[in-house]
Amino acid sequence: MTDKNIGFIGLGVMGQSMAGHILAAGYNVRVYNRTKQKADALVEKGAVWCDSVADLAAASDVIITIVGYPADVEEVFMGPSGILENAPSGALAIDMTTSDPALAQNLWQHGQQINIGVLDAPVSGGDLGSRNASLSIMVGGEPEDFERALPIFKIMGANIVHQGKAGCGQHTKMANQIAIAAGMIAVCESISYAKHAGLDPETVLESIGKGAAASWSLNNLGPKMIQGDDAPGFFIRHFVKDMGIALSAAKNMGMKTPGLDMAYTLYKQIEEQGDGLKGTQALFQLFK
Amino acid sequence: MTDKNIGFIGLGVMGQSMAGHILAAGYNVRVYNRTKQKADALVEKGAVWCDSVADLAAASDVIITIVGYPADVEEVFMGPSGILENAPSGALAIDMTTSDPALAQNLWQHGQQINIGVLDAPVSGGDLGSRNASLSIMVGGEPEDFERALPIFKIMGANIVHQGKAGCGQHTKMANQIAIAAGMIAVCESISYAKHAGLDPETVLESIGKGAAASWSLNNLGPKMIQGDDAPGFFIRHFVKDMGIALSAAKNMGMKTPGLDMAYTLYKQIEEQGDGLKGTQALFQLFK
Repeated sequence: MTDKNIGFIGLGVMGQSMAGHILAAGYNVRVYNRTKQKADALVEKGAVWCDSVADLAAASDVIITIVGYPADVEEVFMGPSGILENAPSGALAIDMTTSDPALAQNLWQHGQQINIGVLDAPVSGGDLGSRNASLSIMVGGEPEDFERALPIFKIMGANIVHQGKAGCGQHTKMANQIAIAAGMIAVCESISYAKHAGLDPETVLESIGKGAAASWSLNNLGPKMIQGDDAPGFFIRHFVKDMGIALSAAKNMGMKTPGLDMAYTLYKQIEEQGDGLKGTQALFQLFK
Repeated sequence: MTDKNIGFIGLGVMGQSMAGHILAAGYNVRVYNRTKQKADALVEKGAVWCDSVADLAAASDVIITIVGYPADVEEVFMGPSGILENAPSGALAIDMTTSDPALAQNLWQHGQQINIGVLDAPVSGGDLGSRNASLSIMVGGEPEDFERALPIFKIMGANIVHQGKAGCGQHTKMANQIAIAAGMIAVCESISYAKHAGLDPETVLESIGKGAAASWSLNNLGPKMIQGDDAPGFFIRHFVKDMGIALSAAKNMGMKTPGLDMAYTLYKQIEEQGDGLKGTQALFQLFK
C-alpha cells in the first residue's frame, strides 16, 4: 500500500522539524496543533491546516502524534473527536510521544478492533536529532505496521529499531531514560568533586571523557554544567514526566530502582523550585 | 637530563604490561615485587630483579610504582627501606597506583625536602589499556617533573594530561571513578527494566547505546550483564577501594555525594558476599 496523506499532530520544537522533513519528502501533510500559530511555518511551505483532530484523521492514511503527556495522547487517540473514532479503516496511527507503555498497549488493542494499526514509536535525539533527521526511533507494534511505517521513519530518523509488540517502543524509551537518570547524578558529582578539589574541570574532562567514565551526558552536559549554561536541550519538566512514567511502570513490575528514585526526587525538587524549563544539566545546582 | 635507569615496583597484571613496554623501548629496567615470581617473564626479557625497594631505588633515575592500597604506597615510599630514603638526589618517583590525593601531596612534600621529584599519575584503561599502551594517565606534580616523565608516559599511555600540582592526578582519577559509580546503577536498572518489560535487552542496546543514554559502561558492561558474564575487567574489590578513597576525600571537602554513597553501599554489599574478585558488572546481580 502506498501512503500519500500524512496527518501530523503536535507541532512543538521537535514536531515542527519532523513534519517539515515529511513535507519536504513529497507527502501531502495535514497538520493540527493546540496552538494554531505553531503551524504557520509549515503551512507556508505547503502543509494543510486542519481545524480538528477529527478532520485531520478522516483525511489521512497515516497519522503521527507527538504531544505532551500520556493524558494528551489518550485524548487525541480515544476522545470522541479523536483519531480512532475518525480515521478511516486501514489507517495507521503512530504515537511518537514519550508516553505510558500500558496506554500504548491499550491504544493498539482499540485499533485492532476497528482495523486501525497503532504503533508506539518514541524517539531520542532531541531537538538536534529532529532537525538533522538523526533521531533514534524505538518502535512497538505489529511487524507489518512497522514495515509500513519504515519509509516515513527513515525520513525522520537514523537508528530505527522494531523492539517488539505494542508498548515495547515506550518500554525501550523508559530503559533509555533510566540509563540517563542516575547517570546524571554521577556526572554532577564528578564535576563537583573536580571543582571542590581545585582542579580545572575542563582539563579533567580531557582525561576522563574518553575512557571507562565516558558518557554522552559527561561529554555533552558536563561542559554546560561547568560553564553554568542551563539552556534547555531537554527540559527538566519533560525528564520528570518520563521518569514518573518509568517509576510507575517499574513499580508495577515489582522492580527496585534506587538510582531512578534518587534522580526523580532530586529533579522533582528542582522543578518545584520553578526551574522545570531549564535543561537537565541544571541538576548540577544541587551539587555545587 | 636523560633518564636511562628505570625502577618499576608492582608487577600486577597492569604493572607487568607497563614495565614490559618500558623495557621494550630500550631502557634499563629494574623490577621489584612482593611476589618475586611475577617478575619472571620480565627478567627473561632483560629486566633486572632487585631484592629490595631500597636496592632498586638506589640504582634508578626514575622509580615507578603501581601497587595495591594507599598503605602500600606509603610503605614503599616512606618506609625506612623505601624510595625516598634510598633514591639518589635528583631522582624522580612516580606513583601510578590509584591512591589517596592527600597522601600524594605528602609524598611530594617529603620529596621536595630531599630533592626527589614526586608525581602522582594514576591511570585508567585497565588491563587492555596497559597491554595496548593506550592508558589515560592523569598527572599531578611540578611541571618540570611532568615534562621529564613525559617520554616514559608516552610509552605506556595515549591520553596523558597534566592536571595540576601534587595530588591533582589522584583527584582526577577520583572524579573518573565518581562518574562511573552512580552510572553503574543506572546501567543495571536500565537493563533490568528491559528484561522485566519482556524486551530483548540486546535489541534495546541497539536503540539506546548511541544516543543520550550512551556510556562506556552501558555499551561495554551492559552486554556482559545480559550474558551473565562476571569475568573481571575491573575487580569489584578495587572499585570499592577507589570509591572509599573518593568518599573520604569528598567528605573532607564538605561535599554531598548521594549517588556515590549508594554505589559504595551496593558494591560493598557484593564484596561482603564474597564476590570482590568479580568484575564491576556483577553489580547487576542486585537488580535482577
